[in-house]
Amino acid sequence: METIKVGLIGFGTIGAGVAKILIGKQDQITKATGRQIELVKICDKDLTSDRSIDLPSGVLTDNLSEILDNPDISIAIELIGGLEPARSFVLNLMKAGKNVITANKALLANHGAELFSAARSLNRTIAFEAAVCGGIPIISSIGTALQANRIESIKAICNGTSNFILSQMEEKGTDYQSAVREAQLLGYAEANPSMDVDGTDATQKLAILAQLAFGAEVDWKSISKAGINCVDAVDIRFAKELSYRIRLIASAQQSPNGLELNVSPTLVPESSPLAQVKDAFNAVQIIGDSVGQVFYQGLGAGQHPTASAVCSDVIDTVLGRTAITFKTLKLWNDQNEKVVIKDPLTIYGRSYLRFCVKDQPGVLAEIASIFGKCNISIAAMIQREEPALDHCVQMIIMTHAAPEGQLRQAVEIIAQFPFVHGTPIRLSVQD
Amino acid sequence: METIKVGLIGFGTIGAGVAKILIGKQDQITKATGRQIELVKICDKDLTSDRSIDLPSGVLTDNLSEILDNPDISIAIELIGGLEPARSFVLNLMKAGKNVITANKALLANHGAELFSAARSLNRTIAFEAAVCGGIPIISSIGTALQANRIESIKAICNGTSNFILSQMEEKGTDYQSAVREAQLLGYAEANPSMDVDGTDATQKLAILAQLAFGAEVDWKSISKAGINCVDAVDIRFAKELSYRIRLIASAQQSPNGLELNVSPTLVPESSPLAQVKDAFNAVQIIGDSVGQVFYQGLGAGQHPTASAVCSDVIDTVLGRTAITFKTLKLWNDQNEKVVIKDPLTIYGRSYLRFCVKDQPGVLAEIASIFGKCNISIAAMIQREEPALDHCVQMIIMTHAAPEGQLRQAVEIIAQFPFVHGTPIRLSVQD
Repeated sequence: METIKVGLIGFGTIGAGVAKILIGKQDQITKATGRQIELVKICDKDLTSDRSIDLPSGVLTDNLSEILDNPDISIAIELIGGLEPARSFVLNLMKAGKNVITANKALLANHGAELFSAARSLNRTIAFEAAVCGGIPIISSIGTALQANRIESIKAICNGTSNFILSQMEEKGTDYQSAVREAQLLGYAEANPSMDVDGTDATQKLAILAQLAFGAEVDWKSISKAGINCVDAVDIRFAKELSYRIRLIASAQQSPNGLELNVSPTLVPESSPLAQVKDAFNAVQIIGDSVGQVFYQGLGAGQHPTASAVCSDVIDTVLGRTAITFKTLKLWNDQNEKVVIKDPLTIYGRSYLRFCVKDQPGVLAEIASIFGKCNISIAAMIQREEPALDHCVQMIIMTHAAPEGQLRQAVEIIAQFPFVHGTPIRLSVQD
Repeated sequence: METIKVGLIGFGTIGAGVAKILIGKQDQITKATGRQIELVKICDKDLTSDRSIDLPSGVLTDNLSEILDNPDISIAIELIGGLEPARSFVLNLMKAGKNVITANKALLANHGAELFSAARSLNRTIAFEAAVCGGIPIISSIGTALQANRIESIKAICNGTSNFILSQMEEKGTDYQSAVREAQLLGYAEANPSMDVDGTDATQKLAILAQLAFGAEVDWKSISKAGINCVDAVDIRFAKELSYRIRLIASAQQSPNGLELNVSPTLVPESSPLAQVKDAFNAVQIIGDSVGQVFYQGLGAGQHPTASAVCSDVIDTVLGRTAITFKTLKLWNDQNEKVVIKDPLTIYGRSYLRFCVKDQPGVLAEIASIFGKCNISIAAMIQREEPALDHCVQMIIMTHAAPEGQLRQAVEIIAQFPFVHGTPIRLSVQD
């Protein structure tokens, strides 16, 4: 029986999960694959922390060259995260003849083109099921099972931290800051959760999905993005009143004038599948021209779900399925037809707007007149008698679909009125 | 560029859908696969019906030997359904050197062992993504993406007709017969829907999933099965009152004493993902030891979703992924370790019971005493003052978990009481 030797770089939470599967389930994997898959080296700076796993002696090292320079290791798993040294490591591992598996969405979103081009010229493969939505097999679904489809749209809840925080606010009526603290306490948010709550993480994942599903090479920084850090408890309440729930949605949609990409806290109808996604769960809704709507839900992060995805890539790489899929998909290939990305300012969409306004005559007329001038039609409006802070009231306006540029302009003009306090809040609305 | 020639047998609804994709999207598929996939022959008895598709002349034939004896055709798609002649066709096609793709769940549930053994000895492959849950890529997910997991349980809504009927009854308050007629009118149920509404179809699909996820070779006829044809409008109402919805659930679950298999209309908590599945949608909830809970929802039937699954198998077969997966999974292989199937009578579960009883003193005491004697604990009970037919009242009893055998015995005894009218109704309950 053939033995495949695997090296793992990064022995944190996910790394330990991968080691548990590759070592603990070795018999099962051998039976399933007909190959002995052996985790022979794990490289990490930290050689002492307890990861609740018994490693054979000599496996753990802080010297990368024990993987890089070992010609018997044919598969390397990169789980250190971040851009450097992950980028150099992956390039060097491929140059050293290893196929790479990574869970690093930031790396792919920033350096996908360079890494995939290097992989092609070195005749190596890169697999990345764990980089988007952890345990949900969304990368393999789009890359293989849905391949007879022209994908029309993807809407993803791909940041578990954000979903957990929104879910807490929704269910317990807590404010944003308390929900963040609760998420940190339970391990769903890092000490500094800014990449999660400002939408960066979701935007990087969306850039990867856009490449995979639409062949679109997009700079993730150019995607129009908002995070959940602008959502207040009052927005959750008003959304509920309007029969919506708020979710951080990363959305990609084909349109006649190009691919529309957006990451934003979004009001989704409370009866929609996306609205049912609670706590740290992730979900993806795909519409394909043949298959119609397919919906996936699962755990997007955490040791075991992410390790499940990494190990499925290991098995696929060992069996040769990865090589076929890698060659077929031609990801981040500059020979691909260029996909037009629509200018965010021209994307049509509905908005939920919240203005904190002084409780005085003429306010509504002034605001309404700006919408009229900007050619934006108002679908619904709520204003309550209960005063907010500083003798202001909250005014909620739901618009009909209008171009992003016009909406921004209208909100900017209204924000300058002396009777408007603070920054107006704008969320997307989906039906 | 290599050209792969494909033959299609069965030019009904699904067959026409497959032809539309393979012909209409030929350029897209060629670009994606790097091969020219050519649908060269379609065989059907009916040469005249309009399928809204322009075929090149000479493609449609009623002579199977034009596929069987054409050595250039390397892939054959079987879409005629049923057992014979489908079984002989598939065997002969493989003997003639063709890899087979089928959407035929009855064929696999009845003759899987024979067909897969023949495929192995002939060095051919069989792919069947479309046989279970149509457009949901559940076969490839279990067979590839979740392969690092030990699957613990599967709960599937895999019969769209049943789900549509239950959904109609739930939303419109209609009775079973009207909902069936509505389903027939809209094309969601056949003129004779018995295989759908008596649970046969779901049971055959469960047998396939049990083979794929657990390696269990099970005679589908031995699986404990009930269909939705026993569900009355009153059950939908009572379920709602108890905060449940009724779904036809095909369930497979690992237990210390073997694999538990069951198909039954089931009360699922109204907040659960399965309860959100409406209309003709299918859904599958899988729990894996690493990945945790993954949930899939999509269209389980219909021309386009099913054709999407068939064509994904075509592409996988062309690219060579099917050959790898086929070899790895060793499905229906008598060399596999035997998986113990638990005796249905020993499976523990909760039940919803409805008795139509005469409105007279002592009835509840007599019924309750039988449950006590059979050692079954009652969790909830509803009896209403409003009389049902024949001066009877409906008595609803929800039990705690008890072995199937004891429950059957209790119900049989109670059914004999002179004050019980008609057949008691028993549904499963899941929490």
